[in-house]
Amino acid sequence: MNDRACPREWIDLAERLAEIARPIAKRYFRTAVDIFYKADASPVTVADCAIETALREEIERVFPKHGILGEEHGGTRLDAEAVWVLDPIDGTKAFIAGMPTFGTLIACCAGDRPVLGVIDQPIQEERWLGAAGRPSLYNGTAIRVRGTEALERSVLYVPAPDPFERSDDADGFRRLKDAVGLIRYGADCYAHGLLASGHVDLVVESGLRPYDYCALVPVIDGAGGVILDWDGNPLTLRSDGRTISAATPALFGAARTALVG
Amino acid sequence: MNDRACPREWIDLAERLAEIARPIAKRYFRTAVDIFYKADASPVTVADCAIETALREEIERVFPKHGILGEEHGGTRLDAEAVWVLDPIDGTKAFIAGMPTFGTLIACCAGDRPVLGVIDQPIQEERWLGAAGRPSLYNGTAIRVRGTEALERSVLYVPAPDPFERSDDADGFRRLKDAVGLIRYGADCYAHGLLASGHVDLVVESGLRPYDYCALVPVIDGAGGVILDWDGNPLTLRSDGRTISAATPALFGAARTALVG
Repeated sequence: MNDRACPREWIDLAERLAEIARPIAKRYFRTAVDIFYKADASPVTVADCAIETALREEIERVFPKHGILGEEHGGTRLDAEAVWVLDPIDGTKAFIAGMPTFGTLIACCAGDRPVLGVIDQPIQEERWLGAAGRPSLYNGTAIRVRGTEALERSVLYVPAPDPFERSDDADGFRRLKDAVGLIRYGADCYAHGLLASGHVDLVVESGLRPYDYCALVPVIDGAGGVILDWDGNPLTLRSDGRTISAATPALFGAARTALVG
Repeated sequence: MNDRACPREWIDLAERLAEIARPIAKRYFRTAVDIFYKADASPVTVADCAIETALREEIERVFPKHGILGEEHGGTRLDAEAVWVLDPIDGTKAFIAGMPTFGTLIACCAGDRPVLGVIDQPIQEERWLGAAGRPSLYNGTAIRVRGTEALERSVLYVPAPDPFERSDDADGFRRLKDAVGLIRYGADCYAHGLLASGHVDLVVESGLRPYDYCALVPVIDGAGGVILDWDGNPLTLRSDGRTISAATPALFGAARTALVG
């Protein structure tokens, strides 16, 4: 939970940024875009870069003293009172495959804590908005997680099995998989939106960067859910990128016990 | 490939069945539906049953002599000249998790060969239609696979890793995973539609039943792609449920070599 206030002007800007991103994403979606590979082997397209450029320009215009951290174009003024954290296309692989479950992630951090987050699906025009001290919204309507407490009754989403299976987490991941009611793969940020809306109970990730998780925090907090790192600490700009999102504290605890013993 | 003709009346009925299914799927999507588990541990909801019942009634009304094979309510008149093959919700797990990538599958077989197939996504209102001797359509527009021939440039979709990893196919699956350009998980029939539309190059599945694969065959064939079993044989009502869908014959061959040596 986060008890810092989030100014209305920041929320307005976040919504405007999502509106700016949508037509750009739509223009490139399901077209033959060139794909480049970054140093970490993750793919990037001209759509990622075009969206981030447009969002940064609008932030610079409205709040020139705020900082910006973006997936494609790096950080500026990261010691500012407010830092915008952007992932123009979270789920670039889904975007490349023509799957409308990627999202534009827009967050704002006060200090190093996320106080505002937007998960926007441009193609289906679905938007989750969370802001500290306010209930989270899905396309303008207040949402709430569901009350699942037991692993065996839970729906778990993981982005892909590979990061877990090729690591020291393999045993924990297998324990979790065997304990849940249903497991689904491959949804990126969209799974966290579904959790906030009460359709999914657990999302487990590792290897995330701040632009991957900052926007998720206010959305899930404001829907009554739990999103923390694998040690049970709140997520900040400096977290290690291992996250558990859960519908309830009891379910968070059960998932964490399965994962790390 | 299939060279049997497909009567216009069958195509009209298939489209009407998809229209009948859509509002039922929409009514139950993202609501708290009860989930039951079948003998094979796969889940089923009241939505699956309601859709199949409505589709069977319409088929009985229009073509009372045709056969019907449905996932939920079994087979009738399976020796008829035409047999309709129905999966009311392919991807019930996605449906349960609120993910709009499940589909209603409607096929018609002449003898034991699929000559007509519809993949319909009711929430996003996306429809792929294939009929023997005609180009496949996406929302009414002719589509074509893309020309990818090399594994290392291909986008592969698999529904979930578990069926492969817990079986004799584990080594082959690992070879294929390591060879492709990009792998994504968790799309069910929707991935085959994306392949027919030229966004995805390969889909590999095992453990499918006729109602899971019959509708895919005319869609992929009519878009210029390849869909065969792992031995390279055409899919019929009697296939073993192991399928490879590929954008080109060369890619099919390369995937098959990786999978089975």
